[in-house]
Amino acid sequence: MARADLAKSSCPVSRAIERVGDPWVLMILREAFLGVRRFDEFQAQTGASPHLLSQRLKQLCGDGILRRRAYSAHPARYEYLLTEKGRDLWPVIMTLRGWGQKWLGGSSITLTHKGCGARIEPGLTCPDCGAALTARDVVAEISADFEQERKRRKGGAG
Amino acid sequence: MARADLAKSSCPVSRAIERVGDPWVLMILREAFLGVRRFDEFQAQTGASPHLLSQRLKQLCGDGILRRRAYSAHPARYEYLLTEKGRDLWPVIMTLRGWGQKWLGGSSITLTHKGCGARIEPGLTCPDCGAALTARDVVAEISADFEQERKRRKGGAG
Repeated sequence: MARADLAKSSCPVSRAIERVGDPWVLMILREAFLGVRRFDEFQAQTGASPHLLSQRLKQLCGDGILRRRAYSAHPARYEYLLTEKGRDLWPVIMTLRGWGQKWLGGSSITLTHKGCGARIEPGLTCPDCGAALTARDVVAEISADFEQERKRRKGGAG
Repeated sequence: MARADLAKSSCPVSRAIERVGDPWVLMILREAFLGVRRFDEFQAQTGASPHLLSQRLKQLCGDGILRRRAYSAHPARYEYLLTEKGRDLWPVIMTLRGWGQKWLGGSSITLTHKGCGARIEPGLTCPDCGAALTARDVVAEISADFEQERKRRKGGAG
């Protein structure tokens, strides 16, 4: 399986990794959630080269995660805004943040929940009973499609 | 800022991306959460070349995310197990899964919460009031350190 084949898997984790499982994409997303919109600022804050940044921004716009909007006509200048699809990646950045804080240290932002005013560290919980969730709290059952796909790969056919 | 400098940022998102913001690392983690432990099986299911897989497994062991354990002495054979630090990355894989399911389709596993028996899709919630959280529900305030770091980068000094 080449990296491009990740998108063809029936596994949504694999599909998501193919789109956003890249350090530059994730750094661009972090910046977008901090309110950054313009090329120069993305470049300064991510450290990406102009070529690399252009390529990733184009990819993210093509994937519908960011959209490009002109903010000046003469000269033509564009800014990059998160779409709904892009904003839905916020939990991915938040869970990276939670893990980073716990295991690697650092502190960069504090989060306040608008709804209740509490200063929070967001975490995964069970939508049914509200309990906090870790890997050990959940049973994962593989679908028939995904099981077949895995067997094919084990057999060397994909 | 070169990629290696991500680890020096005061931002835990950036530090986490430096360790695990890589498609192969994320695919290895997905497999580990599915119970995969052995080199050949990681290779078959991720599609990584032996060289690339060795490098990533070594990195993950060095980072304390996986640990290597001998399961055979003659010949020497090893398996790779998630540590506590590694298991704590489960929310990252789960949020990628949630986004992938919503925006890219696919379905590979069903999840059941052991505690209450419900079939669930884990999501981020406010630990204080229990409300589901999106990017729009939270105010992020940048720390003084991180603000300084960002200003330095804007000035081109880092």
